[in-house]
Amino acid sequence: MKIFNTPPQEIRELDQSDTLSAKRNEFLVPDDIIYLNGNSLGPLTKNSQQRAQEVVFEQWGKDLIASWNKHAWIDLPFIAGEKIAKIIGAAEHQLVCCDSVSINLLKVLACCLQMQPTRNILLSQKENFPTDLYVAQGLEALLGPTRCKLKTVAEPELANALDKDVAVLFLSQVNFRNGDRHDIEKISFLAREKGILVVWDLSHSVGVLPLKMDEWEVDFAIGCGYKYLNGGPGAPAFIYANKKNHAAIKQPIQGWMGHREPFTFDPDYKNAAGIAQFLTGTSPILSLAVLDSALDIFTDITIIDINRKANALAELFLDLVKNDEDLNCLTLESKADSTLRGSQLAFSHADAYGISRALNKADVVVDFRSPNICLLYTSDAADE
Amino acid sequence: MKIFNTPPQEIRELDQSDTLSAKRNEFLVPDDIIYLNGNSLGPLTKNSQQRAQEVVFEQWGKDLIASWNKHAWIDLPFIAGEKIAKIIGAAEHQLVCCDSVSINLLKVLACCLQMQPTRNILLSQKENFPTDLYVAQGLEALLGPTRCKLKTVAEPELANALDKDVAVLFLSQVNFRNGDRHDIEKISFLAREKGILVVWDLSHSVGVLPLKMDEWEVDFAIGCGYKYLNGGPGAPAFIYANKKNHAAIKQPIQGWMGHREPFTFDPDYKNAAGIAQFLTGTSPILSLAVLDSALDIFTDITIIDINRKANALAELFLDLVKNDEDLNCLTLESKADSTLRGSQLAFSHADAYGISRALNKADVVVDFRSPNICLLYTSDAADE
Repeated sequence: MKIFNTPPQEIRELDQSDTLSAKRNEFLVPDDIIYLNGNSLGPLTKNSQQRAQEVVFEQWGKDLIASWNKHAWIDLPFIAGEKIAKIIGAAEHQLVCCDSVSINLLKVLACCLQMQPTRNILLSQKENFPTDLYVAQGLEALLGPTRCKLKTVAEPELANALDKDVAVLFLSQVNFRNGDRHDIEKISFLAREKGILVVWDLSHSVGVLPLKMDEWEVDFAIGCGYKYLNGGPGAPAFIYANKKNHAAIKQPIQGWMGHREPFTFDPDYKNAAGIAQFLTGTSPILSLAVLDSALDIFTDITIIDINRKANALAELFLDLVKNDEDLNCLTLESKADSTLRGSQLAFSHADAYGISRALNKADVVVDFRSPNICLLYTSDAADE
Repeated sequence: MKIFNTPPQEIRELDQSDTLSAKRNEFLVPDDIIYLNGNSLGPLTKNSQQRAQEVVFEQWGKDLIASWNKHAWIDLPFIAGEKIAKIIGAAEHQLVCCDSVSINLLKVLACCLQMQPTRNILLSQKENFPTDLYVAQGLEALLGPTRCKLKTVAEPELANALDKDVAVLFLSQVNFRNGDRHDIEKISFLAREKGILVVWDLSHSVGVLPLKMDEWEVDFAIGCGYKYLNGGPGAPAFIYANKKNHAAIKQPIQGWMGHREPFTFDPDYKNAAGIAQFLTGTSPILSLAVLDSALDIFTDITIIDINRKANALAELFLDLVKNDEDLNCLTLESKADSTLRGSQLAFSHADAYGISRALNKADVVVDFRSPNICLLYTSDAADE
């Protein structure tokens, strides 16, 4: 396949003249692979490698228990949270990093039901990321359908399904297969008009798409730390809770880190004010510290610049695929209009699995989605 | 304080003649501190330091997404789980490492309620570790008191409170303040006789007390990876579910890692068989890998040997405190009989906080528990 061979001079020049090209040096992607899988697992940054060494050897190893204060381990969920807040357009004190996306979705869905005592429907889209649906199915099993009922509809039916029984609409902004992108502002507005709370899963958006959680008046968002945020395998996830809801929230997945005074060891739970009540148990500090460092990649660039570059790369890639005699048999499943898709390109082919394997064997790391999505081209800071 | 100065020749000799003394070399505790706080945060092992470097740089850094299979990241919750199974007296396929103790307790309490449709009481002890009570209070708030009601009684009232309304009895084996230890076998038997399920929190037991989960017919256990297991700050917790219950369990905190086929991206949740259904989201691999390595410390020693040594150290320590002119004003709050306490010694004093601070300043790292518990002497593999 020609396109993965040494790129022609013009492409090298495009890259070199780009304002983001120096970012590549902040990552440790091996030189001999072409990594097109940042939407599954972001690559290692130099920052993170150094931090891992520091948190294990210098902090845990030498300062032991004192590190909770001395190295601010206790504040890490908030420190990392504020860095993500900037990336998703949220003012301070609305973000915290903890647990997994699934657990965090459970927390916010439970909160939404509690805030909507006369409504029982959790509305989503059939094509939502399956684990998000599993969480809702589990909550339904736990609470019973009178109190909690999952309803899923196909994407075109969403607007019509927004009725007075719906407590919360929860959606992934970007479809994990084909990259289809929702208009968060528009859909959140439609839901709000009907008294419906919204929860957005930003797992495949955060770090690559311009987001304005506050301005769009989103109620809650959750997302993943290990995809475009490059936080490392299974990095803690995050929760955004809009300030407007803080007074009404009583998060029922309770643990000591969400208590207003965890170290008084009070036998009765008294939730911390604001976003802190979304914490439950003790955070996995090694994983969290590494995520925290990875986020520093974003401090001197804007998501708008990343998105612009990603779109330029995608257009170029689409052109190259179209003109490559080995690859032009692939069918683009993603929207051609870059404003309607996430930062990925999905192609279908009957032999998608075999093609993915062959590419991976040739050190072009792509992803495969059963049954026939074979190639996901993704671009994030590491590809700059 | 004389006791923390260079120990007399006889004590050095006792240590050198001990079969476990070489274990000290597997830890990286700085030479200039005396670390008596393994019940809060176990120290770093050489194993773990090496593994952290490997998982970050060699695996994530170089093999990226391929590491899920190539380096068995996907199996780590079970690999680490089986190592803990051996430590707590459990046969294979009953242990998994994931999430936090709080989240895992929520999972098993919810399972217990589902297995006991005609009972609504979650019974515990007033002195239980507070976060365990918070979890139950949260579940009560979520499900309502008709379906789920927390009842706590003082320790002497426990046996009498085991009645036909109790769905589950959940207790910490070792009290986090004074170290009081429950007889798991005896209490589990009493509960079982009344049709009550039992959940044991082993956070302050695992790695230091001989445990026989299978033999004692315990239903569920949960516990912490970062105390005596030395898994690192906020290391993932574990869940033990006795095989006898596997067919009846339907764990309602659902996520894709608990699905029987996570990578088919089925829109409907179908729980994995057995212990795997307790997984929810993606595990924090860096933290989990480090815990997995720390567990190798236990492969060539027995918990019976650790416990014997810990008791010998505790007796010696109690003798030294009694005969130390600066410390004999402390009152022992732990049971004098070592079979009735965990691997810790708690002392009270009106100035407990000040004393703890002074000791920590002198590089003798102890813990403080509000309001007046000042000194916790703990012994684990690292102190051998």
